[in-house]
Amino acid sequence: MDSLTPRPEHRFTFGLWTVGNPGRDPFGEPTRAPLDPADSVRRLAELGAWGVSLHDNDLVPWGTGAAEEERIVARFEAALRETGMGVGMATTNLFGHPAFKDGAFTSNDRRVRRAAIGKAMRAIDLGARLDAEVFVFWGGREGAEVGTAKDPRDALERYREAIDVLADYAVGQGYGMRFALEPKPNEPRGDIFLPTVGHALHFITTLARPEMVGVNPEVAHETMAGLSFHHGVGQALWAGKLFHIDLNAQRIGRYDQDFRFGAEDLKEAFHLVRLLERAGYDGPRHFDAHAHRNEDAEGVWDFARGCMRTYLALAEAARRFDALPEVQEALEAASARELGEASVDGDAPEALKAEVDGLDALAGRGYFNERLDQLAVEVLLGVR
Amino acid sequence: MDSLTPRPEHRFTFGLWTVGNPGRDPFGEPTRAPLDPADSVRRLAELGAWGVSLHDNDLVPWGTGAAEEERIVARFEAALRETGMGVGMATTNLFGHPAFKDGAFTSNDRRVRRAAIGKAMRAIDLGARLDAEVFVFWGGREGAEVGTAKDPRDALERYREAIDVLADYAVGQGYGMRFALEPKPNEPRGDIFLPTVGHALHFITTLARPEMVGVNPEVAHETMAGLSFHHGVGQALWAGKLFHIDLNAQRIGRYDQDFRFGAEDLKEAFHLVRLLERAGYDGPRHFDAHAHRNEDAEGVWDFARGCMRTYLALAEAARRFDALPEVQEALEAASARELGEASVDGDAPEALKAEVDGLDALAGRGYFNERLDQLAVEVLLGVR
Amino acid sequence: MDSLTPRPEHRFTFGLWTVGNPGRDPFGEPTRAPLDPADSVRRLAELGAWGVSLHDNDLVPWGTGAAEEERIVARFEAALRETGMGVGMATTNLFGHPAFKDGAFTSNDRRVRRAAIGKAMRAIDLGARLDAEVFVFWGGREGAEVGTAKDPRDALERYREAIDVLADYAVGQGYGMRFALEPKPNEPRGDIFLPTVGHALHFITTLARPEMVGVNPEVAHETMAGLSFHHGVGQALWAGKLFHIDLNAQRIGRYDQDFRFGAEDLKEAFHLVRLLERAGYDGPRHFDAHAHRNEDAEGVWDFARGCMRTYLALAEAARRFDALPEVQEALEAASARELGEASVDGDAPEALKAEVDGLDALAGRGYFNERLDQLAVEVLLGVR
Amino acid sequence: MDSLTPRPEHRFTFGLWTVGNPGRDPFGEPTRAPLDPADSVRRLAELGAWGVSLHDNDLVPWGTGAAEEERIVARFEAALRETGMGVGMATTNLFGHPAFKDGAFTSNDRRVRRAAIGKAMRAIDLGARLDAEVFVFWGGREGAEVGTAKDPRDALERYREAIDVLADYAVGQGYGMRFALEPKPNEPRGDIFLPTVGHALHFITTLARPEMVGVNPEVAHETMAGLSFHHGVGQALWAGKLFHIDLNAQRIGRYDQDFRFGAEDLKEAFHLVRLLERAGYDGPRHFDAHAHRNEDAEGVWDFARGCMRTYLALAEAARRFDALPEVQEALEAASARELGEASVDGDAPEALKAEVDGLDALAGRGYFNERLDQLAVEVLLGVR
Repeated sequence: MDSLTPRPEHRFTFGLWTVGNPGRDPFGEPTRAPLDPADSVRRLAELGAWGVSLHDNDLVPWGTGAAEEERIVARFEAALRETGMGVGMATTNLFGHPAFKDGAFTSNDRRVRRAAIGKAMRAIDLGARLDAEVFVFWGGREGAEVGTAKDPRDALERYREAIDVLADYAVGQGYGMRFALEPKPNEPRGDIFLPTVGHALHFITTLARPEMVGVNPEVAHETMAGLSFHHGVGQALWAGKLFHIDLNAQRIGRYDQDFRFGAEDLKEAFHLVRLLERAGYDGPRHFDAHAHRNEDAEGVWDFARGCMRTYLALAEAARRFDALPEVQEALEAASARELGEASVDGDAPEALKAEVDGLDALAGRGYFNERLDQLAVEVLLGVR
Repeated sequence: MDSLTPRPEHRFTFGLWTVGNPGRDPFGEPTRAPLDPADSVRRLAELGAWGVSLHDNDLVPWGTGAAEEERIVARFEAALRETGMGVGMATTNLFGHPAFKDGAFTSNDRRVRRAAIGKAMRAIDLGARLDAEVFVFWGGREGAEVGTAKDPRDALERYREAIDVLADYAVGQGYGMRFALEPKPNEPRGDIFLPTVGHALHFITTLARPEMVGVNPEVAHETMAGLSFHHGVGQALWAGKLFHIDLNAQRIGRYDQDFRFGAEDLKEAFHLVRLLERAGYDGPRHFDAHAHRNEDAEGVWDFARGCMRTYLALAEAARRFDALPEVQEALEAASARELGEASVDGDAPEALKAEVDGLDALAGRGYFNERLDQLAVEVLLGVR
Repeated sequence: MDSLTPRPEHRFTFGLWTVGNPGRDPFGEPTRAPLDPADSVRRLAELGAWGVSLHDNDLVPWGTGAAEEERIVARFEAALRETGMGVGMATTNLFGHPAFKDGAFTSNDRRVRRAAIGKAMRAIDLGARLDAEVFVFWGGREGAEVGTAKDPRDALERYREAIDVLADYAVGQGYGMRFALEPKPNEPRGDIFLPTVGHALHFITTLARPEMVGVNPEVAHETMAGLSFHHGVGQALWAGKLFHIDLNAQRIGRYDQDFRFGAEDLKEAFHLVRLLERAGYDGPRHFDAHAHRNEDAEGVWDFARGCMRTYLALAEAARRFDALPEVQEALEAASARELGEASVDGDAPEALKAEVDGLDALAGRGYFNERLDQLAVEVLLGVR
Repeated sequence: MDSLTPRPEHRFTFGLWTVGNPGRDPFGEPTRAPLDPADSVRRLAELGAWGVSLHDNDLVPWGTGAAEEERIVARFEAALRETGMGVGMATTNLFGHPAFKDGAFTSNDRRVRRAAIGKAMRAIDLGARLDAEVFVFWGGREGAEVGTAKDPRDALERYREAIDVLADYAVGQGYGMRFALEPKPNEPRGDIFLPTVGHALHFITTLARPEMVGVNPEVAHETMAGLSFHHGVGQALWAGKLFHIDLNAQRIGRYDQDFRFGAEDLKEAFHLVRLLERAGYDGPRHFDAHAHRNEDAEGVWDFARGCMRTYLALAEAARRFDALPEVQEALEAASARELGEASVDGDAPEALKAEVDGLDALAGRGYFNERLDQLAVEVLLGVR
């Protein structure tokens, strides 16, 4: 078993919808048959994953009766027990049903909003039953194509109301789970409310139970807007709000691609893994991605294996990078650690104003960023 | 004087650096001569602006001695008095001097950080002297090209420290001004910290004096990342944090263009103006833009006139839109106002869960967004 | 009947798949029932359209037997005759069937490539039967996510082979139709071959029958890559290759939105319409767009009406713009017509080299672009 | 001397303006002193480069008199002789002087257009004197911000006229150099004519001497528009038109970054290098990039060294990739080579139409793209 072999302690998880993705897209029909959730659990366990995650309707299709639901859930629980797999997070599908076409918590139709809250409560119950650590809200339909149809202030108010009601519900039921909001800038809506990690972090501060709610940043979503993913994750960590994370790959300025982790922008993936490992992030390392549509059934497991192997290879590269003497020298030359020191130490304003006159003398020094970054590239390429 | 003629009560302001932009760009030399700030004040007053805004070094060039500075400022004050013009906001240039090449408040070099804080204090003094309502921080150099050179958590910590120190300073001096942070995703740095309105709104909640600090969103900056500008402004208004606004135009996914307000994406500009007017925003309507590089000196005033005329034309279109009976009908059909009503009214969870069964019945209704948006387009085009 | 009422002489066409779009997207199920193509023809005729366009499988679903196909086509022909509607273009669906998951003309599997050519032949037969003027090729699946899986030179060679074979076929059958290639940068593939109008125009010059093949530019597709649509159309017109056009709306850097024509970037839409009208483009004005997913069945016709009304309003604005004396003055000041004059008139090289010394004297003049563009904005907003 | 040590036979070249970049940007003053071109030649020779490239004004500043020009050029020639360095390409600066603010070959002012052609002639003379293999045209100012100011058809006509006149000139002078057009989508103009490799390849087919003109694609330029760089280069190679190449790095949808080669998107850089090496490209490998602004004088050489080392590391990775048995198996499973085989072999149309019925049977096979791409990632990361 080499260093690229995933093991449960790495806490890798996959959504049921990720390995189960049938390859349908806006222009084409499915290319793969549906998977049985229990089979996915078993296969992922064999590959070394720690657990799975799920939307309510990944497990229990819309329209299932109560008795059948009980049978499905029990069978799934049996597969979890049998394999020792956990449920990293649960969530609710508030985007697939046509009734959510104008939004769920922010639909203009109050009846839809109420039903969305009710559906989320049921999904929270399911998540609690499955011991999900985190309950995620991805508000994919909470948005607009037509700016005059929704006042964004009203939409945010309704969004806040829904999360507050649901947090009360979870606490009232005695569930220990935390909530995590997953931002996305657009698709399937023209513009989605809470488009980035920043907007979600701010929104959380307006909630009645802010301590219970964090974020679930997704590589693809921040990248669609061209933002630095590791900076966004950094702000979430700084705020103590990184409750979950969605790993995949994406090119900037495109449709939501959900590629295999590491399939795009290896250096940014390296920065991310290095940050997570240094910060001691201990939540699930969750892959929200899917195999290319031109894969057959077996290609799905190539995909899953690749996600985990690349994470482990990047974590190993991060350790190697930080252990290199040349890197330590370059970090020193870049004054990288000096950024961790307070700038001001009770100085009087006049003292600080006087330092302005020293700026000309500070203009000449270098920060050795080319050297440092080239070292990162060479470590990444395995030539150091 | 027609409805498109700007008047002081419209509170239009221009940065000294906007009309004074000499047309230098990364590939070419200046095409216009510098303007005397006092002359800019006079000319803008003639055109109907309410005031101006400035960086410290727009008025007082770097390296000016104390006596000369006093002479310059006094002459500028005289021009303000003479014309009745106000100063909407003041700010400090922490990006032009080579010493800021690695950042100002987040430079890895502690000496640079201290000098940056000192320079901001001096600029706050100048702003207070000129009765600036708002002091803006645009952290254009607070960012990185090389991910390993700065831990984003350290950078945010230093950023917070600097704003906290400066807020204490302003309060300690008895200045009444408020602070506003101006986010930007990138350029001139590869990735800038606090890249969007959302990130800045969250950051503000971590400050020692959050009530004193708001945001200064800029059309071009959010648009570079492809985000809906009026949604971002909406979140700022919802949070009570829209302290200032920078109006211009930009195409998505490009270099910072700072075009004349309304020169790109007229419908988004319409949504913005309608939102500002409906929300009763009463701060400066500040144009942070500049004339095309192929304009001569007179073209600058064509540019300035155009910014204000387009704002007024859009405000007029917004009033016309909301007064149209067809629009009121379409808003009703879209249930637009229903979004302002609470979703839940003390309902028991079981009642809300039961509403899930009504979703199928809610799938068929339409939201009349095409009709509503076409009405907006036709009002905009002046054919309604 | 006012100037915004569409009439057949405007040559507006809609794809059967556009008004028939059921509202399915990557995250949600259909929200509208399928339409009968014959009903769509009748409804569009009532609204003032000139014709329709279609993929083979829009009319004849995949898997239909020969007898049923004949019945379907005959019924459709009857609807065309009854209404006087024409078929602007026909095309073939080489993207929906799972077998095309790796490409059609550029699938790595030779059997798929051959079947794709055969399917296109059948669709060309159908197009000829329906008197389609143009046969379009949109190679949505001709691309890759994985760079090592396809050598782009091989892919282009196969693409060229397919178009050459099909052009021979159409000529051999005595069909009078012309071909038009429709470029797109990405979605549903990670990167699509022939990503822009430019790449397609070049590709056409490599064909065996270049005179028979032109382009079908689509607003959304060039805009996804952030390119100026009217510049791309301009290059196609300049080359005599604008054989068809797909009108819709899109924001830069996003999933393929196919919004109502004019719903985004009104000024670019104005430039486009002005260019088409000035160039005397006489092909179909084809809307390849669809109603928002939150519309019901009636909203589809609001959408269709809006597309045509906005085109007519922009054409009217273009006429008004060009008739304004202020615009003529600004165009003169901008030397706009001088660009139509040859730069060189048999001059000796030495004479041209000598003109370099005049550059300093030419640096000062202005080009009055702000004035010209503000006039365009004011005409667009109906205030001039 | 290891495999990452550059040697002249690798044909690496750097623009004088790249290592000489002083770190000025739109928001800040220079951070580094100018370099003497002769010193740059010597330093690059020491680092293992094959040659340099230059704009006329990189070597001979605007406004230099004839005697001084002769002195400068002679001194530069001496440095070339002394070091054995070559000139990979020469070009002319038609963007820096204020007179080019509205364009050079496509300025609306005919006098500017004539002077631009004259300036290019002088630069061609200089290039010929220095034995430049290729003369590049980057039309950075050939574009527009205001759509009504330039008819794109006129602009293309003028562009064509200028290149035709200049090709005649070079041939008339007996110079052996070839021309290469360098496309870019935007910056410094709002939209630039010939925005992509595709548009330039098409434009070339309209010239009087098409055989003499090819393209000079730049990583950053195609990437700004989000296009696949190696697909664009592939189309140029397929057309026999890759006459030169500009290597650097860029994030999609941003200002022109010109980062160190390989600093962004390592997998795309790998695809590019693999394609160039497999295609036997033997022109200069030209780095058009510059050191970060926060580097001092020494950091420039870290930057230059890194560009070359990363190219060599990627070339080595490409060789390793293609030599791996697992890769050969995956390429076979992906039918990658089958794409090189003709699809049709004189088949009758009916035979091809009959193959359509086989599509259902072809739907199930996989293309093993996940496996293949994961192998590429693991080779890149040095774990295979």
